[in-house]
Amino acid sequence: MEEEMISKFPFWNTLTEAEKEYTRKCCIIKEYPKGAYIHSGAEDCLGPSLILSGEVRVCLLSEEGREITLYRLLKGDCSILSASCIMEKITFDTHMIAQTDCVLLTIFPSAFKKLSEENLNVKCFVYELATERFSTVVWTMQNIMFKGFDRRLASFLVAEYDRTGSATIKLTHEAIAGYISSAREVVARMVKRFSDEGLIEQKRGAIKLLDIDTLRELS
Amino acid sequence: MEEEMISKFPFWNTLTEAEKEYTRKCCIIKEYPKGAYIHSGAEDCLGPSLILSGEVRVCLLSEEGREITLYRLLKGDCSILSASCIMEKITFDTHMIAQTDCVLLTIFPSAFKKLSEENLNVKCFVYELATERFSTVVWTMQNIMFKGFDRRLASFLVAEYDRTGSATIKLTHEAIAGYISSAREVVARMVKRFSDEGLIEQKRGAIKLLDIDTLRELS
Repeated sequence: MEEEMISKFPFWNTLTEAEKEYTRKCCIIKEYPKGAYIHSGAEDCLGPSLILSGEVRVCLLSEEGREITLYRLLKGDCSILSASCIMEKITFDTHMIAQTDCVLLTIFPSAFKKLSEENLNVKCFVYELATERFSTVVWTMQNIMFKGFDRRLASFLVAEYDRTGSATIKLTHEAIAGYISSAREVVARMVKRFSDEGLIEQKRGAIKLLDIDTLRELS
Repeated sequence: MEEEMISKFPFWNTLTEAEKEYTRKCCIIKEYPKGAYIHSGAEDCLGPSLILSGEVRVCLLSEEGREITLYRLLKGDCSILSASCIMEKITFDTHMIAQTDCVLLTIFPSAFKKLSEENLNVKCFVYELATERFSTVVWTMQNIMFKGFDRRLASFLVAEYDRTGSATIKLTHEAIAGYISSAREVVARMVKRFSDEGLIEQKRGAIKLLDIDTLRELS
């Protein structure tokens, strides 16, 4: 069972038998309740983690505690910034928050450091994955800075619909604001506008999409 | 001469003699006048480039033509996003603009692609450097999104002072606005405030720092 899980780390097949044996001994499966801080900034070294179930949000925190969501990780994704302590090229701090209850398989940072020093494929994997996240973060940045807020909210709603297949988005205004790095009041205002325009219908703790084509055009 | 320059690519020493010979034949030195677009988005594939002299600005462009400066490159720096066409993990487009007259040594993209496929050290170098830029971009993002504008301007002025060693920053308001992703009027307003507070003195096309300690505290 555990063997099956650990082999899902994308670099697994580049390891020698001895390295595989070593890695098997240096990992842990851990559960986190919804809302828990899985990883927090520089002093906290977690190691690379595979999301076995649930959803994780990775964000930046300002000195005053303001958040920017950089991206979300779902089942099968590998978290790499949680191993930033062993990557000298990563000089910023991120926070990982359990968005739902979740289970993670984590390789101990000291063991992973050893692996990446001994096996160039592992080192390469780390930086390649970090570069993939770089692309995601730039996309987020463009969304925040260039798009009007109507487009941001429409993008988010359509992306949720595409992801879940359901036209009912079960999220509060506050939760949506967290996802798209805005404020609850701003979301509430735009939800009202979309509702007045017949694009969506407001429900208790949820939003029902009525006109997905127009929302998609807007996004 | 050219040999001396090309050996400054950080991965040079990991190449075999045959690869070095091949790379020598597949590079070009080119001059760009101030203001020139050195690299522009996805359809334009330049290849990794070493800045031999001058200063280059790397930025994102919105659909409406708004710019965000991601970072600047100076003599000795290696531009990697100009080779994004051969990096499948980079999915966004950047623009490189000659901020001053400059000279670049560029490896042809097709040749560099071959090198990075054959030599894992080269591939690793590419993604490691991209990850270093990732850190810079996150720093920029935090500056834009979290800091008040007074802190952003103070940071910029102090960084220029630290870089050049001169208390006279020879840049127009418009140029500063370009560097810190703001608008000319916003810079002008804050320059006036700093000037009223005795922190700086306004000159024609330049700003003289009078109270560097306070500016540093503010940043």
